[in-house]
Amino acid sequence: MTSYRFAVSVMPKAGILDPQGRAVEGSLGQLGLHGVRDVRVGRHVELSVEASSEAAARAVVERLSGALLANPLIEAWSVEMLDPGVAPVAVAAAE
Amino acid sequence: MTSYRFAVSVMPKAGILDPQGRAVEGSLGQLGLHGVRDVRVGRHVELSVEASSEAAARAVVERLSGALLANPLIEAWSVEMLDPGVAPVAVAAAE
Repeated sequence: MTSYRFAVSVMPKAGILDPQGRAVEGSLGQLGLHGVRDVRVGRHVELSVEASSEAAARAVVERLSGALLANPLIEAWSVEMLDPGVAPVAVAAAE
Repeated sequence: MTSYRFAVSVMPKAGILDPQGRAVEGSLGQLGLHGVRDVRVGRHVELSVEASSEAAARAVVERLSGALLANPLIEAWSVEMLDPGVAPVAVAAAE
């Protein structure tokens, strides 16, 4: 069994209302930021899967994404395998 | 002025409690999924910035991330420029 780490990005599908994106756009003026458009807010999930092969691990991630992480009616997701040698966002971007 | 599209991933810093990640882990048994560990849940934001250069656009995204998209005390973020020729998650992964 090998451990694989994945990142899943879940976003509202095109045409689906995105109130969080609208809220961000509505706050830009107060920050004095201009030229920002088309803000879409979704979820970013990182997880490790122990499996016998990368294909088996990806199958688990796909099943988890469609059943728990995303609502397939209104959300779409993409799965990316993370390089085990690269620190995840939570470590890499920490100051 | 050129339009640049970015993805910002915001994650709880290492050591910070992540109740959403724990909730996902707690539901895995009901789905019959095994071998999933270390689930961390954050936000994924996509946005477009009109700016005179990529550096200026990145500066806007960094300012927005630290002031509005993330809480720098407990969250870390990473910024990735999206290829304008590549459809965003919401389109690319939609069935």
